[in-house]
Amino acid sequence: MSLASSTDQRLYQQLADNFAEAIHQGTLKPGKRLPAIRRVAQSHQVSVNTVLNAWQLLEDRGLIEARPQSGYYVRGMLPAVTRAGQHKARVRDPSSEKLDLIDKVFAAQNHPDYTNISLACPQDSELFPSTRIARITASLLRRQPNLIGRYALPPGSVYLREEIARRALHAGHSLTADEITLTHGCIEALQLALRAVTQPGDCVGLESPTYFFLFPLLASLGLKALEIPTDPQHGLSLDALEMLLQEKRIQALIAMPSAQNPLGYCMSLENKKRLAKLVNTYQVPLLEDGLYDELQFDWPLSPAVKAFDQQGWVLYCTSFTKTIAPDFRIGWIAAGRFHDAVARLKALSSMAESSLLSETLAAFLANGGYDHHLRTLRRRYAANLDEARGLIARHFPQGTRATLPRGGFVFWVELPGNVNTTEMFDRLLQEQICVTPGALYSLSERYNHALRLSCCYPFDERYTWAIRRAGAVACELAGLPPGQDHGVPLRPQTV
Amino acid sequence: MSLASSTDQRLYQQLADNFAEAIHQGTLKPGKRLPAIRRVAQSHQVSVNTVLNAWQLLEDRGLIEARPQSGYYVRGMLPAVTRAGQHKARVRDPSSEKLDLIDKVFAAQNHPDYTNISLACPQDSELFPSTRIARITASLLRRQPNLIGRYALPPGSVYLREEIARRALHAGHSLTADEITLTHGCIEALQLALRAVTQPGDCVGLESPTYFFLFPLLASLGLKALEIPTDPQHGLSLDALEMLLQEKRIQALIAMPSAQNPLGYCMSLENKKRLAKLVNTYQVPLLEDGLYDELQFDWPLSPAVKAFDQQGWVLYCTSFTKTIAPDFRIGWIAAGRFHDAVARLKALSSMAESSLLSETLAAFLANGGYDHHLRTLRRRYAANLDEARGLIARHFPQGTRATLPRGGFVFWVELPGNVNTTEMFDRLLQEQICVTPGALYSLSERYNHALRLSCCYPFDERYTWAIRRAGAVACELAGLPPGQDHGVPLRPQTV
Repeated sequence: MSLASSTDQRLYQQLADNFAEAIHQGTLKPGKRLPAIRRVAQSHQVSVNTVLNAWQLLEDRGLIEARPQSGYYVRGMLPAVTRAGQHKARVRDPSSEKLDLIDKVFAAQNHPDYTNISLACPQDSELFPSTRIARITASLLRRQPNLIGRYALPPGSVYLREEIARRALHAGHSLTADEITLTHGCIEALQLALRAVTQPGDCVGLESPTYFFLFPLLASLGLKALEIPTDPQHGLSLDALEMLLQEKRIQALIAMPSAQNPLGYCMSLENKKRLAKLVNTYQVPLLEDGLYDELQFDWPLSPAVKAFDQQGWVLYCTSFTKTIAPDFRIGWIAAGRFHDAVARLKALSSMAESSLLSETLAAFLANGGYDHHLRTLRRRYAANLDEARGLIARHFPQGTRATLPRGGFVFWVELPGNVNTTEMFDRLLQEQICVTPGALYSLSERYNHALRLSCCYPFDERYTWAIRRAGAVACELAGLPPGQDHGVPLRPQTV
Repeated sequence: MSLASSTDQRLYQQLADNFAEAIHQGTLKPGKRLPAIRRVAQSHQVSVNTVLNAWQLLEDRGLIEARPQSGYYVRGMLPAVTRAGQHKARVRDPSSEKLDLIDKVFAAQNHPDYTNISLACPQDSELFPSTRIARITASLLRRQPNLIGRYALPPGSVYLREEIARRALHAGHSLTADEITLTHGCIEALQLALRAVTQPGDCVGLESPTYFFLFPLLASLGLKALEIPTDPQHGLSLDALEMLLQEKRIQALIAMPSAQNPLGYCMSLENKKRLAKLVNTYQVPLLEDGLYDELQFDWPLSPAVKAFDQQGWVLYCTSFTKTIAPDFRIGWIAAGRFHDAVARLKALSSMAESSLLSETLAAFLANGGYDHHLRTLRRRYAANLDEARGLIARHFPQGTRATLPRGGFVFWVELPGNVNTTEMFDRLLQEQICVTPGALYSLSERYNHALRLSCCYPFDERYTWAIRRAGAVACELAGLPPGQDHGVPLRPQTV
């Protein structure tokens, strides 16, 4: 990404190293703003460009972070999770204990009285353009109350499908309205896609860790899971995947290449292209979960794997649930060569989506300021993630590591000292605090010391209290003291 | 039902016979209002009660019909379909031709430019309380725009589930809000219920003819179908069913005991009780499709089989799609002993229903005049059915028979002269008229001479033109002349 000559390069690398040192020694504390670029240029007698390049390098290393219209800030000083867990490629069915635990955590997550620091559903409606959406719905109802009395039939609102196609084009897909099937949220898109491309008994490749709902979903369809090593920063191991494809050991693959839940990784463009090529070559359908695609922090957004799909082996599944209107539950799927099968299954499963809600979304996409809204969300989540990482660094046991998400609002925390996070979950539940234990994210036991946390909430006293309490319980279980503001200054190993 | 002494009984039977004769001879024509009861009592020198009893008898015979607040009318003079088709109990998978035909008809049915005389979706929004619903939605949005920004989570709006439970109680079920799962229409309720109670390879008992979407639905889940003889007036043969249950030949059963689609039959209370007892005794789940329960013409409504379900083997599936708000696609299921499994599958399949739409429905159920609205719908559909039967009698070939629906708005027509209704469908499609051929309603070929028609449309020139054209094509294919107003005066054989 550097535009500089080699002399320049030495200069800005030196500058970056100086600042990195200051950060690691705690001179520059997490959450602090870096000095203004012009001031640094003056004091170090270098050009503004050199400083900018140095900052970019620090950003690449995960040490600082740009906040639009505000400047550069030191990131929370948690060491990054940098290694995938050990893997044997074992085909599995979930045990009934695992399914029971998922049920139990899911129920706790949805409990209205609990303080939740892990749910991936923003409940702070101030984050959503609800007032604007409400105005659009009300205006539609005034002009066309008859919409309510019309049967919602497949394939659903052409206006919405056209708007989706128009936006997809910006994001690098080339789609037409006819290639899109509206669904009841992203989970229905995944469910229909699985039913379209698999038979009971088939084996589906998954990232590890992965979205925990996929385990009971696969089980409910008589499908088996095979977890594939996934790097916390680079994502799904394509080498491991290729081996599995060669050996014909999976009949389908589910992945979330952008802002993955729970790790927050974004796959590089190069790897996205390779992934698209792999599934097309081996003719194994990829269900690409694009739920957080528009919440990637990098701009311009990195395109979806679907953008490189030559022969329709990628089924792109997503939803507006995390970005515009959680209540509406409207998602969509572009199922490529499986379009007809998916459309037929949609009609058989739940027919169609409400035209009232679909047309509301379409009008918002067309002229409601969606891009502006997305920028606000991204800024907010990026800042929240940093603040949350800072809190974890202060209050969780020394040696705690966390991922550096490149989008979305969830992140992955690994605890030291053999802390059993399922036990931690139980302990915290007694105080009505809800976390999501790592055991949910794999059918193995390899994440029993991990947690998924989320920061899509307002950072109020309740949230910070809950993080502090979670940290205290973790320290107790680990038999370790909490970290410090400048503590555990491990340099992220992948820089 | 008679309250009369034996002398009275002779009197009113005589009176009924006289009027039946007049109807059969065409003196009283279909659609005509009978003379006022007091006038008949005077002219025949009998009591008002005797006339009332005679009218009831004529009604039982399907010759006349009461229209609330209006009087008694002569029904369309089509002979009734009175015999179930011949059956061998054969387990089947749909052929690909059958599935293709279903796809083709479904696509044609949903074509906006076609004149449809068979679709079971009222598109005449004047039939629905859209303006009132729109007002409720708008008011909710004004008071709680934040609803839009809240994640819709299972099990969904408690307000709506409570209102449903309250109404169910009136209809003879005893349900609590906790026993109800909201679904995306009735089709999702059926889909989830099937997935909860069956394994791929299982065999599901169906009425014959039955709702045609069930065939691809079963096929999509790897289930086989076994069609059970079904009487056009009395419904599912419980003797045949008991035999199948004894022989353990079906693992689940789907039936629509009230206002069945396509026949329009309503099972007697006695048979409903027996059906409930059978499925509880043999412990085979019954998926009761209650979609048209509230559109039964008889008042008070006959309770659902679910009302007699002792041990939770009945999964009651229904929706507000045909009665309040087709666009909202909100249905529900009371899955008895399978409640937990169904609730879990709902979350995995499509998570939950929109709170905005659910709370709108709840507010309408609570104080929107739902009962008044239902009375209007029932009156309208009863009158429409009669008018439609009159049109069929005039324009379809002599010898055409039709069912006498006891609710809803669809009916079943059997043509004479080996008319192939799939050919008729193709011919009419060229004129952009859409009917539903009988071939869809069974995996056998036994209904190739039948049609399902619907009268949930306004009876405008376009509808009557389409019926006339359908009749002309049928006459041509049958090589028979059309019926007459007073023609084909076959006395319904089951009187």
